[in-house]
Amino acid sequence: MKYPLLAAAAAIVAAASSAAADTLVDNVDGMTIDAKGQVERFTGLLIGNDGRIVQTFRRGDKRPGKVDYAVDGKGRVLVPGMIDAHVHVMGIGFGALTLDLSETTSLEEAKAKIAAYARAHPDRPWILGRGWNQELWKLGRFPTAAELDTVVADRPVWLERVDGHAGWANTRALAMANVTAATKEPAGGKIERVAPGGRPAGVLVDTAMDLVKVPAPRPEDRDLALATAQDLLLKRGITAVADMGSSIEDWQSFRRAGDTGALRLRIMSYASGVDNMVLIGGPGPSPWLYDDKLRLNGVKLYMDGALGSRGASLKAPYADMPGTRGLRITQDTALKNLMSRAAFDNFQVAVHAIGDEANAALLSAIEDMAQTYKGDRRWRIEHAQVVDPADIARFGKYGIIASMQPVHETSDRVMAEARLGPARLAGAYAWKSLNGTGAKLAFGSDAPVELPDPWAGFAAAITRQGPDGQPFGGWQPQEKVTREQALTAYTADAAYAGFGEGRFGRLIRGERADFLLLDRDPMLATPADLRATKVLQTWVNGQLVYDAARPPAPPAEPPKRERPVPVDGR
Amino acid sequence: MKYPLLAAAAAIVAAASSAAADTLVDNVDGMTIDAKGQVERFTGLLIGNDGRIVQTFRRGDKRPGKVDYAVDGKGRVLVPGMIDAHVHVMGIGFGALTLDLSETTSLEEAKAKIAAYARAHPDRPWILGRGWNQELWKLGRFPTAAELDTVVADRPVWLERVDGHAGWANTRALAMANVTAATKEPAGGKIERVAPGGRPAGVLVDTAMDLVKVPAPRPEDRDLALATAQDLLLKRGITAVADMGSSIEDWQSFRRAGDTGALRLRIMSYASGVDNMVLIGGPGPSPWLYDDKLRLNGVKLYMDGALGSRGASLKAPYADMPGTRGLRITQDTALKNLMSRAAFDNFQVAVHAIGDEANAALLSAIEDMAQTYKGDRRWRIEHAQVVDPADIARFGKYGIIASMQPVHETSDRVMAEARLGPARLAGAYAWKSLNGTGAKLAFGSDAPVELPDPWAGFAAAITRQGPDGQPFGGWQPQEKVTREQALTAYTADAAYAGFGEGRFGRLIRGERADFLLLDRDPMLATPADLRATKVLQTWVNGQLVYDAARPPAPPAEPPKRERPVPVDGR
Repeated sequence: MKYPLLAAAAAIVAAASSAAADTLVDNVDGMTIDAKGQVERFTGLLIGNDGRIVQTFRRGDKRPGKVDYAVDGKGRVLVPGMIDAHVHVMGIGFGALTLDLSETTSLEEAKAKIAAYARAHPDRPWILGRGWNQELWKLGRFPTAAELDTVVADRPVWLERVDGHAGWANTRALAMANVTAATKEPAGGKIERVAPGGRPAGVLVDTAMDLVKVPAPRPEDRDLALATAQDLLLKRGITAVADMGSSIEDWQSFRRAGDTGALRLRIMSYASGVDNMVLIGGPGPSPWLYDDKLRLNGVKLYMDGALGSRGASLKAPYADMPGTRGLRITQDTALKNLMSRAAFDNFQVAVHAIGDEANAALLSAIEDMAQTYKGDRRWRIEHAQVVDPADIARFGKYGIIASMQPVHETSDRVMAEARLGPARLAGAYAWKSLNGTGAKLAFGSDAPVELPDPWAGFAAAITRQGPDGQPFGGWQPQEKVTREQALTAYTADAAYAGFGEGRFGRLIRGERADFLLLDRDPMLATPADLRATKVLQTWVNGQLVYDAARPPAPPAEPPKRERPVPVDGR
Repeated sequence: MKYPLLAAAAAIVAAASSAAADTLVDNVDGMTIDAKGQVERFTGLLIGNDGRIVQTFRRGDKRPGKVDYAVDGKGRVLVPGMIDAHVHVMGIGFGALTLDLSETTSLEEAKAKIAAYARAHPDRPWILGRGWNQELWKLGRFPTAAELDTVVADRPVWLERVDGHAGWANTRALAMANVTAATKEPAGGKIERVAPGGRPAGVLVDTAMDLVKVPAPRPEDRDLALATAQDLLLKRGITAVADMGSSIEDWQSFRRAGDTGALRLRIMSYASGVDNMVLIGGPGPSPWLYDDKLRLNGVKLYMDGALGSRGASLKAPYADMPGTRGLRITQDTALKNLMSRAAFDNFQVAVHAIGDEANAALLSAIEDMAQTYKGDRRWRIEHAQVVDPADIARFGKYGIIASMQPVHETSDRVMAEARLGPARLAGAYAWKSLNGTGAKLAFGSDAPVELPDPWAGFAAAITRQGPDGQPFGGWQPQEKVTREQALTAYTADAAYAGFGEGRFGRLIRGERADFLLLDRDPMLATPADLRATKVLQTWVNGQLVYDAARPPAPPAEPPKRERPVPVDGR
């Protein structure tokens, strides 16, 4: 049997955990981005037992006579694994593990969903959720603790309202928070009560929400969140990510996965602040660990907030609220100290900057830093959402990388127009202009803020239209990028943005065999078809890690068990 | 050349970092502890390319015809690597890196030593030291900042007095601490002044010492301390240790060494408290990492203080201070909560207990815990120094391990007699009695409190005499152990005490090839000769890691460089 069925590749996964051997993936419509940013096609791929590509073959090239495993691609499209250059890995996992009530249309439906979730997770000490909206339920009032008690009474339940400004607790959660008739209203908050001055009814508003102390996740919860996030990402064809803001707890979870062979996704980690950076990396970036699957690259810092909440720092006032220009989270001097602290030890610096003032100030800081910290620094500007056209050319120097999220443009378009007014739109989500200065583009999703869907991002990048095809012709269509540019920003340049080039991002000799088999060709599909791309298989390091024909079982829950109850209050 | 010279083994080290191959160490007078606690002899050792022992040979056994490396032991004594079951790894390293003034006999000599040390370490932002004693210098007064400035003025200097109750600062350190003429005396402290009410003279006493904020070590300092500690331990023949009280920073340093191939010593880590335990280990003990060189086994807790400072918790008052029975650091209920928290997630529990009351209470806690936490728990009692004879039999149950330090007995003997009086000595440092109950003995040094010298410990264990041969016949000589018991407690049982059995601790098929070549036979040498044992070579995992004929270069200092000075106070 020269070419076993595609499905037979599953056998490789089992074998690979010991010592994988040479694998030939043949009869594919393969592509990669070449050194010039052009698409290069091939039809076969030979992978060594270290997960690296030994050779690519064109039609007619002689194949090796004998390999350990042969996979018939049946003419499928094969593309490099997508790299999401801006995610929050643990946020994706925790988000997926939390009860989502946002689509419930009645209190009864919500109660049924809560009950089912509690039954499905008997080991969870708390039931946590979000997304309810009593308006959609046509309830005319807030729901109550008593109503929640009818479905879960033995464990605390805490469910945040869709807007995050109220929380609904059951009686157990109120008791643990010691919220009683005697509890006073905190400043800026409200305790809903059964009667005026009476016992709490169940919903706590704004600062009163802080009365409920939700416990920090246990390590086993973190590991489950990581496993869940990996499944979700690999399923969508994402084989590597930049994790923007890793805590030491996140990092320890990444390492536990690496130590036990459970790390399937590549993670380029950016520590949350310099304290985490020093604790995780020590005197400098970590080595590439676990076959290039994990590295602490540097630090994630913040210049400002976001546009929607008017926290982005603008040069001129908000169009829809002339009294404010937004907020800087980090001032210039503090920023330079933090950047200097990182750059001194060769940590890479990635800074969140949304507003045009924040971007301009960050560019100035980078220009300052570059005088002292020479060499290949790859200063990353995360989001770079609103840039004064006068500042665009500044992106082209000092190896600055524009780490941008195409779907933000389509999600934010209407809001951005309101916040910025017409005069400032030319520098908004200006992918092509920034790329045109010489700055490399690294595309991502900002998941869980958006879905980690590279195909939606790809379609947005080449159309500047939403899933509804609006607006006609694309929004600020001069900023569309080509399919080749989009693919580069999701593969080779997203790897480069994390110092991963030469290791992964291209399907060429010597790089890791991270690739996807797709049901369509992203270079040819219509934008609507592109959004519907189905990932048939995902391979990382020459191993099959997701197979649509064999969807993975949900990750095992941590073992059910009762924690010991402390004897006293210590 | 069938058997190259012993020295040729150095070549193996270079080769081993890529892929070591089969190594035959032959013509040795080899020994190990066997399954029955008896010494088993052999004359050759075949080591596989994974560092594990393939086979041992007796005289006359057929050797393999061909191996990649052959080492002629020239008839030397070969013993298993010593395992120190209780050390503070980073403390050993930092201790060795700190300026030691304890042997200076004049201010001028001290100044010369300080100047030389500062010259030798141009990159250290602070000069830290200890051990000075103005009485020995016959100075008749404290030394001054001005005197220190004459040797180091450009960097802060902070030198603690021999008793730890005073610190000597230079002007730079005083300025950084903002200690001026206007600074008031803190409660319980004194600022030595040039004139009454005048500017500080240089020495700060007791609580005034806290005014000087010595910076936390940088990650590169930690890595240097670890490298230094490894050198010191391997040189003395210690190939594995239990690190008693690892912080997350310590652990990260261990991992950096492991990640970069610089971990030569085996470290069984016990986290400092449960917060570090959860942060390091997560949901349970870590896997064995780096060819069994690192594992987070569990947690280190404290029952009480030490005998010398009368902090050990005794059942009856101190003989030399009848008003006190010492101090408990952790009360019974808190202790059980902490032990339970650890045992619930299968972390091993190691608890410091010195006084007889502390030991009795800990035994009670273990007896309680053992009702809930079944299975192979290996509860460790660290030190077990003073045990009420009525409690000795309690050590024989629930797999309790007595982790004891033979040299403490000889160092403490006179002090212990004063603290305890004659009636309580029968249960003091009662190695043989505890072992006789069935409790396994794990021997160690408590370095840097004592020197990490297993040969001094071995000699003390079999004689209960100090290096001076005192007292005649040994102190409480009924508690001497045999040479076989001492070797077991320093090898097989010290490994067992950290769940390392089957991995290291014996020189038998399947275990890691950790061994020493010695200049004498510890089973035959007189006690005085035993103390003078010279380690010729130390091998870990089948690799030569120390060779007396080629002492290692001191570890490289972190690169000299100027840290960026923050622009503002952030």
